Formats: sequence, C-alpha cells, structure tokens
Amino acid sequence: MDLIRIDDPEDPRIAGYRNIRERDLVGRQGLFISEGKVVLDVLLSAEAFQPRSLLILENRVAGLAETLAHVPDDVPVYVAAGPVLDAIAGFHMHRGILALGQRRAPLTAAELLASLPDRALVLVLSGISNHDNVGSIFRNAAAFGADAVFLDSECCDPLYRKSIRVSVGGVLKVPFARFDRDEEFLLALKEHGFRGLALSPHGAHDIRTLKRPDRAALFLGTEGEGLPPALLAAMDTIRIPIAAGFDSLNVAAASAIALHRLSEAVTSA
Amino acid sequence: MDLIRIDDPEDPRIAGYRNIRERDLVGRQGLFISEGKVVLDVLLSAEAFQPRSLLILENRVAGLAETLAHVPDDVPVYVAAGPVLDAIAGFHMHRGILALGQRRAPLTAAELLASLPDRALVLVLSGISNHDNVGSIFRNAAAFGADAVFLDSECCDPLYRKSIRVSVGGVLKVPFARFDRDEEFLLALKEHGFRGLALSPHGAHDIRTLKRPDRAALFLGTEGEGLPPALLAAMDTIRIPIAAGFDSLNVAAASAIALHRLSEAVTSA
Repeated sequence: MDLIRIDDPEDPRIAGYRNIRERDLVGRQGLFISEGKVVLDVLLSAEAFQPRSLLILENRVAGLAETLAHVPDDVPVYVAAGPVLDAIAGFHMHRGILALGQRRAPLTAAELLASLPDRALVLVLSGISNHDNVGSIFRNAAAFGADAVFLDSECCDPLYRKSIRVSVGGVLKVPFARFDRDEEFLLALKEHGFRGLALSPHGAHDIRTLKRPDRAALFLGTEGEGLPPALLAAMDTIRIPIAAGFDSLNVAAASAIALHRLSEAVTSA
Repeated sequence: MDLIRIDDPEDPRIAGYRNIRERDLVGRQGLFISEGKVVLDVLLSAEAFQPRSLLILENRVAGLAETLAHVPDDVPVYVAAGPVLDAIAGFHMHRGILALGQRRAPLTAAELLASLPDRALVLVLSGISNHDNVGSIFRNAAAFGADAVFLDSECCDPLYRKSIRVSVGGVLKVPFARFDRDEEFLLALKEHGFRGLALSPHGAHDIRTLKRPDRAALFLGTEGEGLPPALLAAMDTIRIPIAAGFDSLNVAAASAIALHRLSEAVTSA
C-alpha cells in the first residue's frame, strides 16, 4: 500500500474532507466521513459500505498498520501533518483517523423487509432528528444484534458524521432504510408478519412481562411529542416503568432497555 | 413578584450569567446554571439546592407564570430581550430560561451513606469525565429512583451546565457526594452493608439472573479502560450480555439497563 503525502490543504484529492463540520449539514449523496480507528475497522468490514479514501495523521500511521492492511489496493491512503489535517477539516482533529466512505446501493424499506430472517427484531424510528440520539440508538441496535432499523422522513440521516461517531460504527453495521408514509409502511410490516410494539411512557403492557413475538417491530418516537396517535392506535403499546415524579427516559436509554429485553441475539448466560 | 428588567449586558446584577459557556470550565463554588423550564421546576422543588436568581427571555415570561409563582420572594427574576440575553450568555440562548442556582451545604460521602434507607440502590461512578455521560447517568438514576450517586475524584462535576441539562434536572434530584480514595470508600460501603456490583463487559454474573441485594452499590467505569482491576477484584462483577462482534455499550446505556433491572422504585406493572 502506498501512502500519499498531502502538504496543501487545498489539494483537490482530499476535497471530500474539507470543512467537514459545516458540510455535515448538507446532503452528501451517500458519501460520509468516519472518524477513529474503531469506526474505520467497522467500515473496512462492512458489506453495505465501501471506503473511498483514508486521511490519516502522520504520527498515527505506524500504530494503524494492522488496520491499514485491510484497505483495498485501489483505495488511496492520504497522510498529513497535524496543521495540514486541521486546516483541511476546519477544526482540530485530535484523533487523526478519517475515512471517506460511500454507501453501496441502498435498499428500499420493502427490500430490507423482504431480506429479514424468520425471527427478527427491527427498530422503527419516528421523527428522531437529533444526531446523538440516532447514533446512540444505532449503537444499541448493533450491540444487541437488531436485524434492521427503519427511519421515517423526519429522522435525520444516520450517515451524518456525528451519528456515525456516536454509534461507534453501528450505523455501518445494522442495515437501515427509510420509508415515506407511515400507513404504507405499517401495512408492509403487517404483510411480513411483524407485530408492532410502540414504546410509550403510558403504554398498556409492561415490558418486563412482554412475550417476545417472532417478528417484532419496536417503534420509538421523540421525547417531546412521542409517537403520533395514529401509530399508537395501530399497534400494541409498551411501557418501561420508571419512578413517579420524574420526566421520561431519553429515547436512546429507552432503546437500550427495550433491546436488552427483546433481543435474542445476545451471548448466552 | 417583581420582574427586574435588564437592558445592559454588563449590568453587575446578572454577572453570574456572563459567558456561561466558557465559565463552565472553571469551578463555581457550588453555583451552577440551569436551563429550561423542566430543570427550573426541578430546581424550585429541590431540597439540596436553591435558586439565587432567574434570567428569563421577555417573551417567555407570560408562559412561565405557573412556574414563576413558585419562586421565593427574595429571589430576583431578571428579564431581558433576546439580543441582551445572547450578549450576556455569550451565545444564542434559544430557550431563554436560565437560573443561577446554588448547592446548600453538600453532604460528605460518609454523611450521604449514613442517610440512606435500609433497602437502597446507589451508583458509584469511577473516572467518568464526559459531561454527557454523567448527565445521562443522573437522568437514568432519577428515572429509576436510585437513592444516591457517588463520584470519585476523576469524575467531572455533575453541576456543569451541560450535565445538568442532559440530566433534565436529575443532578438536582438524586443526592450525590464525592469520595477521595477508593479503598476508604469501599470500606465504608461494606460497613454500611452494601454489596458492590461492578458492571463490566466480562462480568461473572449475568444481570438477567442476578438477585437484587437489599443494599446494592452499582459501580460504573469508563468505556475505554473500564473499572480499575483493584475495584473489580474487590466485588462481584456483572455483565449485560450483548451480541458478539461489536464494541461495548455506552456507559449511560449500560446504567439504564442495570437500573431497570435492579430498581425497586418503579411504578408497578
């Protein structure tokens, strides 16, 4: 593998890394930035994503030898000194391990649904627009081996830099797809034999006594407004009991507890 | 209640709110900034904390009447227009509901331990220096009615602005104390009949089958290094099983699951 030294922050070869904080806010046509060694390792082993290039701080290269051995030959590895890297990124990159990745052909929600195993646990996110929460939910989904995540049109893009970082690569690991209209997607879930379970502070069923269905679709909404009434009315509602007199759980914390309760993909006791 | 109008960002009466983002990084002698209505409501009902003043965006005052009725007469309520408030705080405050609070005499770890009920669940945080994680853990502790949180000297201050905000006021609700030396604190826990339970990815006991002791002290460490070996050796270790091949859970997510499993303070099924 050849390392390509970059000395000019304006070098067109590293244009994809320029001012990444600001560019996080705009669409990137399936391109995204991963940060750190752990996420890079996930990217290099991911099926649905491919690295397009790497940009590494020069003093991190030696320690990364094992990871870099997995980089395909046609993927350029750029190396830069600290000040150059910071000038490219637009802020101080203390980790110094960046990759520009690209999603291979994304699945539609229908295709992803059709690909799932007989026993499956999927998450359905409704209106979750906070990058931290989406990243944390994907981290939990990966940790508990959820089979897929579906996002409605109000959710933010899981491929935002911050979501990928917070997910520790979970976004690159758990298959996901977007859907446009709740009604259609609910129908598709039903056709595929999924039982909808809506997590809600006032849900009818206590999650501690819930029997896991073969195919479960766990719906998570925003903390403020919660899931839309039409969704709640269309499926079973479940609650995580908490102490009286306090607000509610953070949605990512709720996802952790629900996945812990419902997942069958965990290592045995 | 009188509202005191502030037109000059340099007004000495609101000095405590000046450049709060930067001042978050320095000690504040038990003073702290709360943000938002929910946290303000918690502050106004908290036993261990008192409001010293409020600073409210003028167009938020009318909607806050119910909350403001609980403000003690000797606590000044300052009101400012948007640009003045932003100039005071040093950045754009879209919520516009600030309070300067103060901790009443803090308990020592020994005093807090001595105050706990016969059946008690406490958290012990070791080396958790991330404000988000500390705030999220406190939110979970409040949601599940944990009796206390103890923090070692490496943990960041729960009264940092961001920790309070992320905790949604949980920091003001769950009693907490710091301890200096692990060995002394372990001894004190033991003397008070607490069984130490160290959460660890390789813990010996599966949390799903753990029997909750009367007095449980749940130890949480950093994600990178985990709990110090000396701590792990001194108590029972428990694990939250996750899927093979992924990193670990975020410490706040792990706290949510463990509290969900161990708390008895939740509403019944």
